[in-house]
Amino acid sequence: MTTLSHLLKNNQTEISLPFLQQLDSQDPLAAKRDAFVLPENTVYLDGNSLGAMPKLAAERAQQVLLQQWSQDLIKSWNSHSWIDLPAIAGEKISQLVGAASGQLICCDSTSVNLFKVLSSAMLMQPGRNVVLSQAGNFPTDLYMVEGLASLLGEQDCQLKLIAENASDELLEQSLTEQVAVLLLTQVDFRSGRLLDMQRLTELAHAKGILVIWDLAHSAGALPIELDACNVDFAVGCGYKYLNGGPGAPAFVYVAARHHSAVHQPLSGWMGHSAPFSFDKSYQKAPGISQFLTGTPPILSMSVLDAALEVFNDVDMSQLRQKSLTLSHCFHQLLQQHDCLQQLQLLTPLKPAERGSQLAYRHPDAYALCQALIAHGVVADFRAPDILRLGFTPLYLRYVDIWQAVTTLARLVASGEYLKPQYAIKNKVT
Amino acid sequence: MTTLSHLLKNNQTEISLPFLQQLDSQDPLAAKRDAFVLPENTVYLDGNSLGAMPKLAAERAQQVLLQQWSQDLIKSWNSHSWIDLPAIAGEKISQLVGAASGQLICCDSTSVNLFKVLSSAMLMQPGRNVVLSQAGNFPTDLYMVEGLASLLGEQDCQLKLIAENASDELLEQSLTEQVAVLLLTQVDFRSGRLLDMQRLTELAHAKGILVIWDLAHSAGALPIELDACNVDFAVGCGYKYLNGGPGAPAFVYVAARHHSAVHQPLSGWMGHSAPFSFDKSYQKAPGISQFLTGTPPILSMSVLDAALEVFNDVDMSQLRQKSLTLSHCFHQLLQQHDCLQQLQLLTPLKPAERGSQLAYRHPDAYALCQALIAHGVVADFRAPDILRLGFTPLYLRYVDIWQAVTTLARLVASGEYLKPQYAIKNKVT
Repeated sequence: MTTLSHLLKNNQTEISLPFLQQLDSQDPLAAKRDAFVLPENTVYLDGNSLGAMPKLAAERAQQVLLQQWSQDLIKSWNSHSWIDLPAIAGEKISQLVGAASGQLICCDSTSVNLFKVLSSAMLMQPGRNVVLSQAGNFPTDLYMVEGLASLLGEQDCQLKLIAENASDELLEQSLTEQVAVLLLTQVDFRSGRLLDMQRLTELAHAKGILVIWDLAHSAGALPIELDACNVDFAVGCGYKYLNGGPGAPAFVYVAARHHSAVHQPLSGWMGHSAPFSFDKSYQKAPGISQFLTGTPPILSMSVLDAALEVFNDVDMSQLRQKSLTLSHCFHQLLQQHDCLQQLQLLTPLKPAERGSQLAYRHPDAYALCQALIAHGVVADFRAPDILRLGFTPLYLRYVDIWQAVTTLARLVASGEYLKPQYAIKNKVT
Repeated sequence: MTTLSHLLKNNQTEISLPFLQQLDSQDPLAAKRDAFVLPENTVYLDGNSLGAMPKLAAERAQQVLLQQWSQDLIKSWNSHSWIDLPAIAGEKISQLVGAASGQLICCDSTSVNLFKVLSSAMLMQPGRNVVLSQAGNFPTDLYMVEGLASLLGEQDCQLKLIAENASDELLEQSLTEQVAVLLLTQVDFRSGRLLDMQRLTELAHAKGILVIWDLAHSAGALPIELDACNVDFAVGCGYKYLNGGPGAPAFVYVAARHHSAVHQPLSGWMGHSAPFSFDKSYQKAPGISQFLTGTPPILSMSVLDAALEVFNDVDMSQLRQKSLTLSHCFHQLLQQHDCLQQLQLLTPLKPAERGSQLAYRHPDAYALCQALIAHGVVADFRAPDILRLGFTPLYLRYVDIWQAVTTLARLVASGEYLKPQYAIKNKVT
């Protein structure tokens, strides 16, 4: 069997269609593609932006509409366990991110959940007022810190940024006694760079700093060990590698050791210890449920819950191997085309340093992306000049890599991508 | 035609089945029932907790699943206007609550939206630190104030409560110069009491106080005039009278006059003036979009948007007339049964003082409610002793009132409701 380490050792292995077909025939995850509904004649390299639809998700939506909502109505909060869905879906995600039971729950958006853990963490760190993050972090994470700072005032909360490519020394120097929280995204949304969760969490803890990890681009894409890394807080997204549907509810993880001391300010009724006693005063639920706020969107939450069942029998290390092999083959094949030499890889090539995507700079990245989409290869563009390709091992085949790269090469060699229709900007890019 | 005023003048009109059948035959909203999927042999008096499913909602869900998500995937943000859904659905709700365009948007939960407007309003009121509300307000509203107070500290934010039945004098006396925000729910979730939005908003403004109205139990249930009443902020719920599905996204209204001065702290990327430029710093969107935070749950939001189309040709004053007539008939009929005299009406009887529900105290309200549900009449219970009945004019018939009250009378007269199975508590009540 051709393994990733074999490929890496033999860096000059020519990537051919028969070779990719052979990889497909050996792929232990090959059958998983059948769990999804996918458009015909399309290579979908944007599952890192919106995961494809699992068949189970569509079936569950039918049940919620045709039976639970329309027929059983309000009774479904009990009879179909709507009230427990945030915890039920949360437990499924726990399995994928190395979290023991009772520490992770699904709710709200990543941004809102970040506000909860960020403000919780700040309240736990009297005398420290800095949130340290990276300049290249996903903007909404930084905007949420700005929002909290505007509310608390600079003396109680301020954002400091270090460069994305800061040296280890600079990073360590930045972890001062003013820093209350280190806020990092495990896989960078643009470059795809993977940070070392264990080492960075340790470094921060050594300075008394609490750590929040954003798992938007890593949950469901690679093995994660939140408990083993002693992480304090994490948030993540349900609609990327977890395939929960557009804008699916997000999730929040809080290590059990913090459950009694923590107080999150978005203290809505679903986080109350007895929501239906309608007490006048807030009494937080004892466990992770205290991080719930309002009534969850049941239809979207049910679809996420069903989508997570696709992972039931998935070995995350197998998934990671396939992810790395897919992207390795993509990059190797790209290098075999002279016309694609202008594409400059931003993503670190070392497996330990990258997530499940590749990012290339190109002066016409937007037009290239639009032309690819028009020709059945769905990638995405990130301003100002990045072509981003996501590799989702549950439904991508190795032969898809062949189609993607050869299409790209054809568009570039022919100059097709320079046609004016590909320059028209969409509202969402 | 039998009108409500006729009924009110002739308080002793005997409510009979033929009389109710006659009301149905004259009902200008009668055909709307066909727009919903409803369970057979059920009288649903809990649309104030979870609205019934519009057929259009189920059809839209199909489109989102079978075409938009599974086939068009990420392109749907543009091609199916996912990115504009919060504003599109918001404009539909604007029509129902007397808000000119551009001031209302759908997003998040009512609780999260309340946090946004509450913290925004506090930041606009330096030197004032009190949030004044009613002791009987829906608990999550009070909990969210508690949460903000825990974050800001008592010197900057504290909750003061006045009794639900406080006299006008006491209320006026409570509107002091310390009060930054008056937070009221237009229709009380327990009693169904309707507050005078115009008068209370005026009183508060006269003291320099900003007003937040929670419309959870009024939006879609009665005509509302946010602009005409000069309201500052409002929040409301998509899953009750708006029929948006379980846990449907909520909405937030901010008067245009505040758009430039306001700064809401849940400043996520969807509220940025250019979300896809991925700027490092937050620059709020100019209009109501600044109240968006994270990525919205598109499936739930689409279903809400479709559900709102049911209101397109509805005259809200006609809807209000039917709502009041339905509840009037219910209470009159109830009084015709000697065995139901133990049920003590909590709701004010004057039309100007009640919303679209009736609430009765009864020592065995929980068991009564469970027995009703078991016999096809879905009401709900609110701790500790309230039987609550919601009247949703779009899909309730007058003959349903007959079935509901006669079922209740039969259960009480026979003592059926005292059977032990009706005493078993559900998780959600």
